[in-house]
Amino acid sequence: MPLFSPRLTVAQVEEGHALAPKFDAAGLIPVVTTDAATGEVLMMGVMNAEALTRSIATGEAHYWSRSRQRLWHKGVTSGLIQKIVEMRIDDDQDAIWLRVQVAGGASCHVGYRSCFYRAVPLGGVGAPELRFTESEKLFDPAEVYGDAPNPTQL
Amino acid sequence: MPLFSPRLTVAQVEEGHALAPKFDAAGLIPVVTTDAATGEVLMMGVMNAEALTRSIATGEAHYWSRSRQRLWHKGVTSGLIQKIVEMRIDDDQDAIWLRVQVAGGASCHVGYRSCFYRAVPLGGVGAPELRFTESEKLFDPAEVYGDAPNPTQL
Repeated sequence: MPLFSPRLTVAQVEEGHALAPKFDAAGLIPVVTTDAATGEVLMMGVMNAEALTRSIATGEAHYWSRSRQRLWHKGVTSGLIQKIVEMRIDDDQDAIWLRVQVAGGASCHVGYRSCFYRAVPLGGVGAPELRFTESEKLFDPAEVYGDAPNPTQL
Repeated sequence: MPLFSPRLTVAQVEEGHALAPKFDAAGLIPVVTTDAATGEVLMMGVMNAEALTRSIATGEAHYWSRSRQRLWHKGVTSGLIQKIVEMRIDDDQDAIWLRVQVAGGASCHVGYRSCFYRAVPLGGVGAPELRFTESEKLFDPAEVYGDAPNPTQL
């Protein structure tokens, strides 16, 4: 039996019990991942159909890595596996929310707990000065990743 | 003085204090919006440069509506304005996190508090049966939106 249902009507997609995800033109669906205990947003990523299928089957977060163009079982390199406590899908089924427990406590390749470690000040004039919300890294990326290419692209 | 800085080096983007957002090929950046009090994910959306600029300037969430192809000051129709308590940007500056207070308590055009009102069961066999995590709507969409077109697209 297929995991995903066809998208037939707005009512079915919004109010039904069938999983009928909408992947974009590139075959991807956006994912937000939060810490199940604190509610903190850890990262945003994307899944393709295979990553979503594997995440559902295994209860561990799998993404599609756009920088590496391959399936990405998060934590296989770093040890920072994300155990999914709850998976949710949104009204029109084009976005996924994962509530996870993270082994090791860090999610970000830069070494911080969350990828969102800088706040943008509001209401000012001119260029905003970002404020760091985390003061220390939980691991040293050079030790964990060695000379693997940095996923950040300019 | 321009609001956004150029993206010059990985170190500057990841560890710097300048706001240097990366918009995708369509000129958009993904946004996750959470309830500042509970940590619940309310919605995911996108901003273009103008929506980000207005959100920073006004402290109220502005998005780009892909279904309507126009700037979207969230809440102008429904009254459910999102007051930004904190805005954060991620490591490679290609995603935004808004922590908001929502007037009226609801964020979803279907009438629920969060757009993510259904959980996807994990580890089962065959088609998952979605489980509703909210039992009642906070408003009646027909009353609030009248005959405006539903943004959900099949």
